[in-house]
Amino acid sequence: MLRIADGVHETPVMQSRLLNKHTGSHVFFKCEHLQRVGAFKARGALNAVLSLSDDEAANGVATHSSGNHGAALAMAAAQRGIPAHIVMPSNAPDVKKEAVAAYGGLIIECEPTQQARAAGLEQVLAGTGAHAVHPFLDSRVIAGQGTVALELLKQVPDLDVIAVPVGGGGLLSGTAIAAKHINPKIEVIAVEPEGADDAFRSFGLGELQGNSRVDTIADGLRTSLGELNFEIIRKHVDTIVAVPDALIVEAMELIWTRMKQVVEPSGAVSFAGLLEHPERFRGRRTGVVITGGNVDLGALPF
Amino acid sequence: MLRIADGVHETPVMQSRLLNKHTGSHVFFKCEHLQRVGAFKARGALNAVLSLSDDEAANGVATHSSGNHGAALAMAAAQRGIPAHIVMPSNAPDVKKEAVAAYGGLIIECEPTQQARAAGLEQVLAGTGAHAVHPFLDSRVIAGQGTVALELLKQVPDLDVIAVPVGGGGLLSGTAIAAKHINPKIEVIAVEPEGADDAFRSFGLGELQGNSRVDTIADGLRTSLGELNFEIIRKHVDTIVAVPDALIVEAMELIWTRMKQVVEPSGAVSFAGLLEHPERFRGRRTGVVITGGNVDLGALPF
Repeated sequence: MLRIADGVHETPVMQSRLLNKHTGSHVFFKCEHLQRVGAFKARGALNAVLSLSDDEAANGVATHSSGNHGAALAMAAAQRGIPAHIVMPSNAPDVKKEAVAAYGGLIIECEPTQQARAAGLEQVLAGTGAHAVHPFLDSRVIAGQGTVALELLKQVPDLDVIAVPVGGGGLLSGTAIAAKHINPKIEVIAVEPEGADDAFRSFGLGELQGNSRVDTIADGLRTSLGELNFEIIRKHVDTIVAVPDALIVEAMELIWTRMKQVVEPSGAVSFAGLLEHPERFRGRRTGVVITGGNVDLGALPF
Repeated sequence: MLRIADGVHETPVMQSRLLNKHTGSHVFFKCEHLQRVGAFKARGALNAVLSLSDDEAANGVATHSSGNHGAALAMAAAQRGIPAHIVMPSNAPDVKKEAVAAYGGLIIECEPTQQARAAGLEQVLAGTGAHAVHPFLDSRVIAGQGTVALELLKQVPDLDVIAVPVGGGGLLSGTAIAAKHINPKIEVIAVEPEGADDAFRSFGLGELQGNSRVDTIADGLRTSLGELNFEIIRKHVDTIVAVPDALIVEAMELIWTRMKQVVEPSGAVSFAGLLEHPERFRGRRTGVVITGGNVDLGALPF
């Protein structure tokens, strides 16, 4: 926590009596959409960059990203005064490219396939000697994302349960480690879109599964769960539930209209979990992590 | 302040380094879109309702409103345990009708003309003996709206200037009285949509002017300035500026995307004033009142 405390915001916790009434739970929203770069990703990226030795940092950092991790890494690198090389698929939203560029990140465009992204990153690493920072397969990133829960449990110590979305699993694994360390009795419930439910299936089968196809509005959660993250999740997470896109949009709409907060689809997924399974949260003190707020206002689902 | 302190929120003040950079001013956003009923109107309505003697309150309260004042009065009446009769034009947005109903307000529908609204209210008053609470031609309402500035100047004591939108003039007159009372040197700048610029013209001519036609996206500011409010404004307000709708939408978009806050068009008008006249705010500590966040997500201007 201390390592990144100067570089990221302590984000506020919001409550809404209307949404408490709606869910029957006492909900504490952890507002990571108000984090720097508009997402919790700032924490993991900054922790990774500040963890590097001077030698490791000498040639800058690199990653491939179509989303918030790229902007977060650019922001973190700028804080340390080193270059950030971000390989981005050509179909990445303009708003994400602009965010990377605004923080001084160097954008390398590639074809929009996983192979092209990986190859592009290899090429950048070979050409620059930069240090790679993966968005979730990295213990420094996981530790950084875990500070969301550390902060939340400092702000609201007596939570019964925390709801967190899962994509690659960086936030979920960090949250589970941190929350259970502070309070072994706290329940950690992960929420995943039905259209990319590899973590849900992996958790049930006890074996890492991929996604044969991905179809969800929650663009930040289309990634498949990482091996490292799955090991942590198996050990520390209590439940994973899956939610349909219609409920993700409903959750977004409730947060926009009742709380007046702009959250992206992925950012509303944890609250959609409460709408899907109210009985798991009723009468309890629930932490809900709103993960990000970077949406394209020209393409809203309302 | 004390009279309404238990019934309304002390709303937070937000800052954005991106928007500070964008405007060259050090901006403190007073977040009245996070107020109860989603607008500062809760303050004036509650102050008026709590000011009533038991005799005056005995038969409830009434008003005509297509907007946030109706919901605010219903909320305030519910707190006092008295009925609220709200005359609403048949074309009022569903979201506003729902808000009134959610607070237990009794809706009386009328034709969407000023005459029909006034006649409808007269009828209600005659039939029920309710006490009328006007949205801005009322010193108790003005005093309630003034608590926005009292609170802001407690939160950020050393402001140089405050930007406030003007419609009927309830918020502006309350702000001007409160702010100049605390700090006579503070500058109060009112901002009005060009498409309903009666206050701008009245202020310039020193004589109350009407609007021959009204055409602005800022639905909360289409009303004409009240006589009582104009007298206060002439005495205590430094400047009124007018802004085009395009700039109101730009201000909204900046607040949505950079600050992740859902504000309605009227709520972004004061910030549009900074975009129109940056030289008036550059290098200064500026309070910007975000007045409300009640928007229809199905009809956004983006």
